[in-house]
Amino acid sequence: MSIKISSQFDAGAIDVVSVTSAGDIDVNIRKDSHADIIQWFYFRVQGAQATELTIRFMNAGKAAYADGWQDYQAVASYDRDTWFRVPTSFDGEVMTIEHTPEYDSVYYAYFEPYSWERHLALLDSAQLSPLAQLVDLGSTVEGRDLNMLIVGDEDAPKKVWVIARQHPGETMAEWFVEGMLEALLDPADPFASQCLKEAVFYVVPNMNPDGSVRGNLRTNAAGANLNREWHTPTMERAPEVYLVKQKMLETGCDLFLDIHGDEGLPYVFVAGSDSLENFTPEQKAEQERFIEDFKIASPDFQSEFGYPDAPFTPEVLTMGSPHATHAFGCLALTLEMPFKDNANDPDPVNGWNGARSMKLGAAVLQPVLRALRR
Amino acid sequence: MSIKISSQFDAGAIDVVSVTSAGDIDVNIRKDSHADIIQWFYFRVQGAQATELTIRFMNAGKAAYADGWQDYQAVASYDRDTWFRVPTSFDGEVMTIEHTPEYDSVYYAYFEPYSWERHLALLDSAQLSPLAQLVDLGSTVEGRDLNMLIVGDEDAPKKVWVIARQHPGETMAEWFVEGMLEALLDPADPFASQCLKEAVFYVVPNMNPDGSVRGNLRTNAAGANLNREWHTPTMERAPEVYLVKQKMLETGCDLFLDIHGDEGLPYVFVAGSDSLENFTPEQKAEQERFIEDFKIASPDFQSEFGYPDAPFTPEVLTMGSPHATHAFGCLALTLEMPFKDNANDPDPVNGWNGARSMKLGAAVLQPVLRALRR
Amino acid sequence: MSIKISSQFDAGAIDVVSVTSAGDIDVNIRKDSHADIIQWFYFRVQGAQATELTIRFMNAGKAAYADGWQDYQAVASYDRDTWFRVPTSFDGEVMTIEHTPEYDSVYYAYFEPYSWERHLALLDSAQLSPLAQLVDLGSTVEGRDLNMLIVGDEDAPKKVWVIARQHPGETMAEWFVEGMLEALLDPADPFASQCLKEAVFYVVPNMNPDGSVRGNLRTNAAGANLNREWHTPTMERAPEVYLVKQKMLETGCDLFLDIHGDEGLPYVFVAGSDSLENFTPEQKAEQERFIEDFKIASPDFQSEFGYPDAPFTPEVLTMGSPHATHAFGCLALTLEMPFKDNANDPDPVNGWNGARSMKLGAAVLQPVLRALRR
Amino acid sequence: MSIKISSQFDAGAIDVVSVTSAGDIDVNIRKDSHADIIQWFYFRVQGAQATELTIRFMNAGKAAYADGWQDYQAVASYDRDTWFRVPTSFDGEVMTIEHTPEYDSVYYAYFEPYSWERHLALLDSAQLSPLAQLVDLGSTVEGRDLNMLIVGDEDAPKKVWVIARQHPGETMAEWFVEGMLEALLDPADPFASQCLKEAVFYVVPNMNPDGSVRGNLRTNAAGANLNREWHTPTMERAPEVYLVKQKMLETGCDLFLDIHGDEGLPYVFVAGSDSLENFTPEQKAEQERFIEDFKIASPDFQSEFGYPDAPFTPEVLTMGSPHATHAFGCLALTLEMPFKDNANDPDPVNGWNGARSMKLGAAVLQPVLRALRR
Ligand SMILES: [Ca+2]
Ligand SMILES: [Ca+2]
Ligand SMILES: [Ca+2]
Ligand SMILES: [Ca+2]
Repeated sequence: MSIKISSQFDAGAIDVVSVTSAGDIDVNIRKDSHADIIQWFYFRVQGAQATELTIRFMNAGKAAYADGWQDYQAVASYDRDTWFRVPTSFDGEVMTIEHTPEYDSVYYAYFEPYSWERHLALLDSAQLSPLAQLVDLGSTVEGRDLNMLIVGDEDAPKKVWVIARQHPGETMAEWFVEGMLEALLDPADPFASQCLKEAVFYVVPNMNPDGSVRGNLRTNAAGANLNREWHTPTMERAPEVYLVKQKMLETGCDLFLDIHGDEGLPYVFVAGSDSLENFTPEQKAEQERFIEDFKIASPDFQSEFGYPDAPFTPEVLTMGSPHATHAFGCLALTLEMPFKDNANDPDPVNGWNGARSMKLGAAVLQPVLRALRR
Repeated sequence: MSIKISSQFDAGAIDVVSVTSAGDIDVNIRKDSHADIIQWFYFRVQGAQATELTIRFMNAGKAAYADGWQDYQAVASYDRDTWFRVPTSFDGEVMTIEHTPEYDSVYYAYFEPYSWERHLALLDSAQLSPLAQLVDLGSTVEGRDLNMLIVGDEDAPKKVWVIARQHPGETMAEWFVEGMLEALLDPADPFASQCLKEAVFYVVPNMNPDGSVRGNLRTNAAGANLNREWHTPTMERAPEVYLVKQKMLETGCDLFLDIHGDEGLPYVFVAGSDSLENFTPEQKAEQERFIEDFKIASPDFQSEFGYPDAPFTPEVLTMGSPHATHAFGCLALTLEMPFKDNANDPDPVNGWNGARSMKLGAAVLQPVLRALRR
Repeated sequence: MSIKISSQFDAGAIDVVSVTSAGDIDVNIRKDSHADIIQWFYFRVQGAQATELTIRFMNAGKAAYADGWQDYQAVASYDRDTWFRVPTSFDGEVMTIEHTPEYDSVYYAYFEPYSWERHLALLDSAQLSPLAQLVDLGSTVEGRDLNMLIVGDEDAPKKVWVIARQHPGETMAEWFVEGMLEALLDPADPFASQCLKEAVFYVVPNMNPDGSVRGNLRTNAAGANLNREWHTPTMERAPEVYLVKQKMLETGCDLFLDIHGDEGLPYVFVAGSDSLENFTPEQKAEQERFIEDFKIASPDFQSEFGYPDAPFTPEVLTMGSPHATHAFGCLALTLEMPFKDNANDPDPVNGWNGARSMKLGAAVLQPVLRALRR
Repeated sequence: MSIKISSQFDAGAIDVVSVTSAGDIDVNIRKDSHADIIQWFYFRVQGAQATELTIRFMNAGKAAYADGWQDYQAVASYDRDTWFRVPTSFDGEVMTIEHTPEYDSVYYAYFEPYSWERHLALLDSAQLSPLAQLVDLGSTVEGRDLNMLIVGDEDAPKKVWVIARQHPGETMAEWFVEGMLEALLDPADPFASQCLKEAVFYVVPNMNPDGSVRGNLRTNAAGANLNREWHTPTMERAPEVYLVKQKMLETGCDLFLDIHGDEGLPYVFVAGSDSLENFTPEQKAEQERFIEDFKIASPDFQSEFGYPDAPFTPEVLTMGSPHATHAFGCLALTLEMPFKDNANDPDPVNGWNGARSMKLGAAVLQPVLRALRR
């Protein structure tokens, strides 16, 4: 059987350049739709059981985050349920996977995918819980439903907003939300019952449905990077942000979490609202307390490594978290998980993955509860 | 919350005409892509929890099989896992669903869907079995993989071919195949082990991937009804048939089953190759024996109701089963399951569904084994 | 770590003679309580991970069915969920297992056990079905509940009785019943719905609770072989038979199945009521039709090998099946499954096991339905 | 059908006084075997579907902890999987359950049971993990295996000991251990991987196998309260303690947790080693830090309510935790969970239960990790 590469499925993305033999495959990472972002890939190889594959990503050096390939290992799966890391190298221009699959059909991806079907199943099962309501916020550029789950009582004194996958290729963000919702809807979880005495949770598991289905890293179906659209979103370019922002203005917001993945750093960390001009010492202190509490709640979370401090520029107000602090005066954090591994607790077989993201999502209720009680 | 109707998901299909209120919703059944076939629908309604919905399908009378709406009850689900029938009526022109959903988000469909994700998961799990090989036959019009599972030893004396979903909206066909594969790969199933001593199985769980994802009843992405393409298939119009036919010519075929759903009859039955001009008495007898054996193997199967006898026309050779008898001299049957219910064993809650189709798929190994041993 | 052998758990049974080293272990098969029956064993070995065990059963030659050890392979498990066969030999006096366990704790048994906890769970889950009622018939010698499930409508025209594990060590009998009940309570199973139109099922999954918990092969806690107590059972010696017989006299019986395992023959077969003096040609014919139908329903069932014909003796009327024919004039069969393997379809890894017994239990509904319809 | 009460199953315990009708049932709580302890009950009622039961526990006022019945609600289940609280009252002498079961067979118990089969399954599944070894410590008075799981690397610098169910009726203790082990063996749990860098865990999930199977609240098969046997245990009276103590002396101990349930207080709390004469301020501070850390790790844990301070008496050294501090100088805590509910987070449907105990067991790794890192 000859080698076949395909990507016509949910989030599939690759451009085949040439397939001479199993040992001589050249591909290009496909651009996001409507934007020049190169990073996400997800494809299937058939016909190489027990044969060593050499897959060269010829344009890896031109990726949005080329340093994301340093020390990076791609993920693979035979059943799209169990994913594992495969030997991957990067010479500054070309990234190469060398792997001998055990079965005829194998999938390779940038990170463990989170499919649109799983997204719908997450909504479906949550709505069956007496603790949650499923709400439609409107439609995306391509007409997909933008859904929100409301967990708890809307009359609760505080409002917690959690949004994920503004950047659709950062699938760890929706794994995180799945873990958080599992905890929040578990009648045996004490953090859930205590948090829900203090607050209602507005959760948008997937801010970017079109980009998710298309297999984009970063943009929606209009080519917009949603996390640069919070200042003046429009229904044409960024309805996803426009609709969520409208709802936030309606409900108010006391705590805002925007869940992401970072291509470069092998750590879990948050970026806060420090760049805001009027960020007060009290806000800074509250932010620090959350960070310290989160470290206790999960050994995967740390604050040693993260983004460098940056001065205020107008762009800051286009981003979700700083915008939330600016608009609501509230604690607002952008949580970043690695595409690579957690260097503080490396797992060579799995790297960072969906299961670890879920654990982190459950753990976040601990610092959230402490923040709500202050 | 106002009523919202959407269908931007796998196999989703509806055209909204007007939504005045929950009790006043007009829709049209959407055409198959590239063809004037009206029958399949699948959509989501949000915002009607505990509110009576009246949904009128204005163009139902113009459906491909308008008599399919007689005594038909649509299916609904809150979680796309448990489906149930809802009150549905037809006045000859308009079909109407009247239903009060228990949750905010509810899906309605023509029949219990079988998603592309589930299709891929079926292939994935089968390939992990030591009894099965997963093989790529080529690509569809839109570039999806056309996969086949080979179960058993290719050197076995006989070759059984089972294909399903030439008509993509007949999802019961892939539920049937899932049930058959579950039995065939079960080490405790005695029919599986005995059948695999006699034959190798070539199974194509989904002949029409593009139509399945698009939510077509009947056609592929070129507008072709695949079950009228077997005489002279081309890679342009019907690559799915072309590729399978090529493979059949390579392997040979001793028994051919083509799995379908029927819009009108509330029964399970087969159509044989009787219309062929040179259909021999021996072939007729063999066909009758299979039918009698199948009745014993499943009380859901019957031969009292079915298609009327038809004289030979050239069109007969364009259809999968007669073509197989013509080309290979073998027993070839088109199996039909109802979209409605089995009138011999009605289940008002579920009607005919995926679970019953799976049972039938497991049961078919019994008449197959008897045929193989003759 | 030194080798330890223990059996203080449900159905555990062994007598340790000496444990010199992993390679030098002598045991005796323990007697049934209150009877001189030697056959069932079930014990745990700890401390032999990656070490070859040689376990000699010194009194194997004195077993109730010493020819049961010919071509017999014992079963083992690390988790009591997955059981597999291990190399076992018999020299006419001593039976020897030679096996190198992969884990520190390993269980060995005569056949895949069916625990009292699983029995209770089977009753529990069945009672949750709207199709079944759970009924108490009374108490065993040691005060355990003797339960029956009534499946279907007691006003149905015919009464089917199925009893299992009169001989408690024949655990395949309760696996069979679990498979039959799973089918009978499955709303998608057409045999279930058709059978329940014709008949109500009285099912006693475990006729011998005390013997099951004690790890007896054959007897109850009074030392009685229940299948020799049907003529004049008493509440002292065989309350299990007494209570069931009373209930049968109350309900009547149109078809009686008594499920067993056979120590010697590597086949599935039935024994009928041929030995009865007044067994009529009509009854014989009905019995033959059931046998022929069962062969079609399951390739695991056969009639070539079985018990030889035997003349009538008074003992015949002490056995469940002949007694039922005698008392009710009905078709009554003793079904036997192998402790060894099915020689017609050998599986060297598993031999005959729980999963295959369950399949057979589901398959029996096919000949039952045909008998009910006659 | 008449009412039947039975208890011949794992941990079953009740004495029936009289059953006049469903509304008039008198029972006595059975004593622990070989000891005058009255508290644990677990029995099955059959024949009362849709009928109001009134069950009076005539000797409740003579229970070991009669104030345990104040504000106590008994648990019930139809399938021994889902347990729920039922209306229960206590007048100082007689405790009364009034409940109308939905099904014919219903179980009532003092607390959600944890069966010996589940215990064995816990060991079985743990031994399949590459992180755990299953070890036999010896045998109980009645010959059951006393097993320990070693999780992690025995060469790790610190040794954590966790023991549970010295008092066998305190089944929440083994649910706690199941939750802790699930976390500890989960490759995605960051507390597990961090803890296992610092320490090896010696876990005895069930210290009192005989009492567990017999349905004792407090004692083993020799009538010993194991938590009063740590000073000079003997193989005759308390082999369970003798064997564990020997192993602890062999391995050493840096942190000791002894898991219990408390009949009276509706809170989760710990008792420390404060009563020891030579308890140092440093030890006290370490104990306080653990308590504060545990409060953060689980909102179910608190320190406001607990046992009053008690002066040293020789009995103190007979108890597991103080003995461990005395012998090893280490932090040692007796963790108590309620039989009733957590009054800080009441759940009228479930009260405190197995699922909440499991969550607490997973959460304990957080204060353990912080203690290990100090
Ligand atoms: Ca991002
Ligand atoms: Ca069709
Ligand atoms: Ca027998
Ligand atoms: Ca205690």
